[in-house]
Amino acid sequence: MPGMIQSIERSSAVLRLLAAGPDRLRVKEIADALGLPKSTAHGILRTLEHVGFVEQDPRTTRYRLGRGLLDLGDAGLDVNELRSRALDWADALAARTVEAVRIGVLQGDSVRVIHHVFRPDDTTQAMDTGLVVPAHATSLGKILLAYDVTALSLGGLDPYTRKTVTVRRELARALAEVRAQGWASAVEEWESGRAGIAAPMRTFGGLVVGAIGIYGPVERICDSRLRPRPALVEQVRATAHAISRDLSGPRR
Amino acid sequence: MPGMIQSIERSSAVLRLLAAGPDRLRVKEIADALGLPKSTAHGILRTLEHVGFVEQDPRTTRYRLGRGLLDLGDAGLDVNELRSRALDWADALAARTVEAVRIGVLQGDSVRVIHHVFRPDDTTQAMDTGLVVPAHATSLGKILLAYDVTALSLGGLDPYTRKTVTVRRELARALAEVRAQGWASAVEEWESGRAGIAAPMRTFGGLVVGAIGIYGPVERICDSRLRPRPALVEQVRATAHAISRDLSGPRR
Repeated sequence: MPGMIQSIERSSAVLRLLAAGPDRLRVKEIADALGLPKSTAHGILRTLEHVGFVEQDPRTTRYRLGRGLLDLGDAGLDVNELRSRALDWADALAARTVEAVRIGVLQGDSVRVIHHVFRPDDTTQAMDTGLVVPAHATSLGKILLAYDVTALSLGGLDPYTRKTVTVRRELARALAEVRAQGWASAVEEWESGRAGIAAPMRTFGGLVVGAIGIYGPVERICDSRLRPRPALVEQVRATAHAISRDLSGPRR
Repeated sequence: MPGMIQSIERSSAVLRLLAAGPDRLRVKEIADALGLPKSTAHGILRTLEHVGFVEQDPRTTRYRLGRGLLDLGDAGLDVNELRSRALDWADALAARTVEAVRIGVLQGDSVRVIHHVFRPDDTTQAMDTGLVVPAHATSLGKILLAYDVTALSLGGLDPYTRKTVTVRRELARALAEVRAQGWASAVEEWESGRAGIAAPMRTFGGLVVGAIGIYGPVERICDSRLRPRPALVEQVRATAHAISRDLSGPRR
């Protein structure tokens, strides 16, 4: 039908075939049933497998519906997998920027820090892993809110410093800006004297599953006019991008 | 990821967002969450709605998961809808060919005739609607078997005439030919003196949901060498094609 995306129509037909069939199906059986060349059916099946909607039995090479279709609500990545996939990138970001790196996921209205790499110097630092920080006052949180469809259900916006955004409309404007530029900063909005820069970690289809960023003394993160240093923004973005590419790749 | 079909990856992300979200979502919310232009998100949502995987609330214009995702096993078309959509085309085919027209769906190993248009002449004819006919010995059945993924589970191949195909390997060869040419015939394979020509009715993605064909005296359906008359084959195919285009169109 005109205006419709053919590969989506075909995917839905493949899923219906697999759901209706009594058994697992071969690529050729699916191709024959839908009147498609085998290579076309194979490309669709590979992508559906990649997103978790179908599974291939490695022994028989037959396909069946995947668990991802049953657990649609989660992105198919648990926190442990997210963390283990981002570990090396987080270490490298800390080394390059000489700042502390944190990875966070949304937990209700807040951000839970699921990984923390200390700033690579000799200062005493507290472990932030497990910490829950306010979403609207941190760069990690702004990223997660900007790409979360439930962001508008956020409760009251508590003030932490004079700079915390506490007006809902201002926050909405800030989040729109975050989406437009693809990264977020929060300068002395949670703790005085400290600032952060963060970017989104995405899996297939663009789904945001977490945020990664640096956090440190405002005079190191920002320039003299309290603006995030462009070189640091680029490091954070490049790292987030590399992790996203990895998260969109084959499951390990 | 290279080699993956982007629109399928994005569809899966849209479905996961809708499954994870607490409420129905607007196009813009989905576009923002996935970092897509609104028009791209809209095209994906329209197609997902078309195949029954999402539903749009006409009042609020928000999207939610569709029933089609829960009832994956059926093609979202019941026999009544199939029939009502094919009625006019079946009448027109009977008028043009001056033959009886039948529409069938697979029921176990057999074909159930769900609609029958009498040959438009004055002869006395019995109503076939509701009749169950053998799949391997009829043109309707050969179409349905050719595109059905469970065809190989077929039970014994009973002989009805001397011409019925009763050897599994021969039937498999015949079905492969049906797929290659896109239509089927059965000449005196069920009843002596009678022949049929049929073609597949497909819905979106190429899913075969039924077969339509003509059935009548062999000397009218076939030429002197007992081969289906090309002009009749073309009429049947054109009708099946028109119905398929209709079945792939917007729900009524």
